[in-house]
Amino acid sequence: MQTLSSHILGRWHTGTEKPVTLENPTTLAPLATVGSGGFDSKAVLAFAREKGGPALAALNFQERGKLLAALSGAIHEHRDELIQLALENGGNTRGDAKFDIDGATGTLMYYAGLGEKLGARTLLSDGEGLQLGRTARFWGQHVYTTRPGVALHINAFNFPAWGMLEKMACALLAGMPVIEKPGTPTALVAWRIAQIIVEKGILPAGVYQFVSGSLGDMLDHLGPQDVLAFTGSSGTGANLRGNANLIKHNVRVNIEADSLNAAVLAPDVDASSDAYGLFLSNVALDMTQKTGQKCTAVRRVFVPAERVKDVVADLVAQLGRTKVGDPSEKDVRMGPLASKSQFEEVKKGIERLAAHGTIATGGTDPIQPKGYFVAPTLIVAKDAQNPAFHAEEVFGPCAVVLPYSGDAVEAARLVNLGGGGLVCSVYGNDAEWTDRFVLLAAPWHGRIWIGSDKMAEQALPPGMVLPMMIHGGPGRAGGGDELGAERGLHFYMQRTALQGFKGAIEATFGDKSPATGTSGS
Amino acid sequence: MQTLSSHILGRWHTGTEKPVTLENPTTLAPLATVGSGGFDSKAVLAFAREKGGPALAALNFQERGKLLAALSGAIHEHRDELIQLALENGGNTRGDAKFDIDGATGTLMYYAGLGEKLGARTLLSDGEGLQLGRTARFWGQHVYTTRPGVALHINAFNFPAWGMLEKMACALLAGMPVIEKPGTPTALVAWRIAQIIVEKGILPAGVYQFVSGSLGDMLDHLGPQDVLAFTGSSGTGANLRGNANLIKHNVRVNIEADSLNAAVLAPDVDASSDAYGLFLSNVALDMTQKTGQKCTAVRRVFVPAERVKDVVADLVAQLGRTKVGDPSEKDVRMGPLASKSQFEEVKKGIERLAAHGTIATGGTDPIQPKGYFVAPTLIVAKDAQNPAFHAEEVFGPCAVVLPYSGDAVEAARLVNLGGGGLVCSVYGNDAEWTDRFVLLAAPWHGRIWIGSDKMAEQALPPGMVLPMMIHGGPGRAGGGDELGAERGLHFYMQRTALQGFKGAIEATFGDKSPATGTSGS
Repeated sequence: MQTLSSHILGRWHTGTEKPVTLENPTTLAPLATVGSGGFDSKAVLAFAREKGGPALAALNFQERGKLLAALSGAIHEHRDELIQLALENGGNTRGDAKFDIDGATGTLMYYAGLGEKLGARTLLSDGEGLQLGRTARFWGQHVYTTRPGVALHINAFNFPAWGMLEKMACALLAGMPVIEKPGTPTALVAWRIAQIIVEKGILPAGVYQFVSGSLGDMLDHLGPQDVLAFTGSSGTGANLRGNANLIKHNVRVNIEADSLNAAVLAPDVDASSDAYGLFLSNVALDMTQKTGQKCTAVRRVFVPAERVKDVVADLVAQLGRTKVGDPSEKDVRMGPLASKSQFEEVKKGIERLAAHGTIATGGTDPIQPKGYFVAPTLIVAKDAQNPAFHAEEVFGPCAVVLPYSGDAVEAARLVNLGGGGLVCSVYGNDAEWTDRFVLLAAPWHGRIWIGSDKMAEQALPPGMVLPMMIHGGPGRAGGGDELGAERGLHFYMQRTALQGFKGAIEATFGDKSPATGTSGS
Repeated sequence: MQTLSSHILGRWHTGTEKPVTLENPTTLAPLATVGSGGFDSKAVLAFAREKGGPALAALNFQERGKLLAALSGAIHEHRDELIQLALENGGNTRGDAKFDIDGATGTLMYYAGLGEKLGARTLLSDGEGLQLGRTARFWGQHVYTTRPGVALHINAFNFPAWGMLEKMACALLAGMPVIEKPGTPTALVAWRIAQIIVEKGILPAGVYQFVSGSLGDMLDHLGPQDVLAFTGSSGTGANLRGNANLIKHNVRVNIEADSLNAAVLAPDVDASSDAYGLFLSNVALDMTQKTGQKCTAVRRVFVPAERVKDVVADLVAQLGRTKVGDPSEKDVRMGPLASKSQFEEVKKGIERLAAHGTIATGGTDPIQPKGYFVAPTLIVAKDAQNPAFHAEEVFGPCAVVLPYSGDAVEAARLVNLGGGGLVCSVYGNDAEWTDRFVLLAAPWHGRIWIGSDKMAEQALPPGMVLPMMIHGGPGRAGGGDELGAERGLHFYMQRTALQGFKGAIEATFGDKSPATGTSGS
């Protein structure tokens, strides 16, 4: 059985601690082992800062963009192989695996294009220059420059490809070397990608390091120019944010945590409308795609009280069309959960929520003789105010329908009980109603997706993260954001106010200077 | 003797715990007492969120700007009285006191003007809208909306007026109610301002609360829509950032900590040039203004090795023209340190640094029979590499001259040993040299001030914080920023990506919509 190694200090390294075994969540067959430890964290960080950083600093945005395009191409060449690994190690259907891998290569290509657009430069200006003195001789300009540190990325198990490469795209384009740690249970896909990256030799030495298993004491050695970006549970996020060394050095931390994402059906949406069809298909897609293991997946579905019965019936019918089973079978649309611990957690979560409502479909009864399978489960809440529904996230194919009055203000109040979300979707054709809702829900969300008849035919679903829009959210969702075109680069750069003689500042640092790309969207 | 009270829940409240006595640092005469405690933190926070927040939400940027202008006017009316209090309680000279109070009213007026410019709106757009689907029907737009929480501001002792009101200006214009806690040793000025604000009745109930003394357990009750902004020492900053409740809820924290700000003399600057004159006067000003108790004051002065002797002689001569003594005397240019604890800390700090160099002027010998006086002290480092000079901040009238080779790259490397600064000033007429320095120093600084002959006659000094430029810095400086025109509002707002039908999004949320102000600079 193969052992997943790390690629650090320019070579492959096998962990020395007791290895963890990865398994196929469909068949429970062991697939690989992952070792940890046996390396010097300080040396790994120094290699990035001292080798990788200068190598990227020598390139401009355009040249870094070309590296991203080359990465995208190299990964795409291995698409079929990676899909197969995702199926085996992640329980992904072919569609799930494509979503992850094509999401990764697509995001890389988007940022490759942004690099091309930013051109032969290494600085971003932030806004226009401005007069500070009595005349324009004394001048100010805000700029972003690359931090001469290392970007440590702790990735989630659910998107081993997309999750790692979207973070890398922003960091590398901004000019920071990366250290990538995959989520262990599904590390096979990330590891194969690491192999491809290393084999192709696309990235200069020190720009990309990959750590399988545990990071050891690496967090304790991050410094003031380093950054940490994490995607995963809010509990782990809080542990990371509380690390004494990160606090001491004010190390930048970006957390993208799971949240209790909501979908809201406005009262005006007719059951025969396109918006209603979109609502049904998006809710069912979010519940079943990746077996509900998406940080953006809907967990709470708000429906006007008098329509709950009909809507639940329609959702149950929609979910009933999703064939669950071995993802290697062609017509299967939902596979197992990714790991045993997820399986146990999801079953417990469903039971906790079901105690406060009724199960319309699904539940925790076994649906396959083997493997980490849970049926798509829809729970109808007795009382939408019950705090359990706004605190308990089931990271699997489960959502709760919560009745509300049909009032936009009440809908926003209930949605916001989630304490901060990555995305909220609202379906309505009455713009006055949706505007009122959006204005109240916006401060609690990183993204709001407004569904209506007019965009139904064109819309990409709310669970999909787009490279040109920010991804993240306040409070429970982690309090950070990433992506969003150039916005995603800012985390890896320092904004500095420059003050001095106008001519000198404009020549080198101005928003019209040949050295500086503009950093609006 | 008067007791400084708090203004909370719409009334004045006197603390119930054992009071602290404030004194005049010149005469050591007791001036007032400050009590703490005896209030319910949760109620104070709720009053802000439930009364103050909605009152501000009902106003647009223009109307909030008018409140700021009214605050500025009310404080300016009491200018002479506040100057007198700063002199008594802070040891400020008249010039120091004006700097603080006029800085406060000026910053309020700047943000009043920004409110006028942002107009009859309550939203800010972030960048232009963009096409997300196959056609433009499916559209995206980033917006900023006001967080429906409370802004808790923990202010520093050195700028009781400016520090409090610059934070308030940004929060109130963004639409968030504030709770202001002044630095206790110099709270008299802040308290008098609080009295003026309350007496004039400018701000709606709940918009402004003022807590003298300790905050009690208030940090433990902040929630995901609240924010905390702190100015003060890096140690206290780290304690705040490590608060378990703030971490749990991903409460936004902005820290502006003291830093080891540097001034760098480039080798090309002729001793007869305007840039050199500016260098001497700015270094001496930073060392003596506010008795060196400015977070932006220069602590490290880098001088080409072969010029150290001459430069030190010139600086000593310049400092010799600063009369130190009772700040109520008209010709005195530097008063005492603000408090006994500052006095003890500064003396200890000077001794620690002097152990690694020679004292060119000043030192810790008493220069007045009474009061917290320390002479302006210039230390010449034996070895610029000595880590003590890059770690030990003396928050008083003390700076260290450090010799360097004259090379821009070496200068940047030494400056960056400070671990992150609020501001760095560099004096040079060779743009190639200063550009090279600035590019390397920028990621380590929130602001870089470039002095040259061409701007010498117009320049505002580097120690001065301007409302249109960001203030803050990475690493040791706290890792945050504030001010910077609209940039200062973003901390108090949530950025949200909106996706939906183009027509509907543009009408209400677009960058050209009548409801939305643009948020570039």
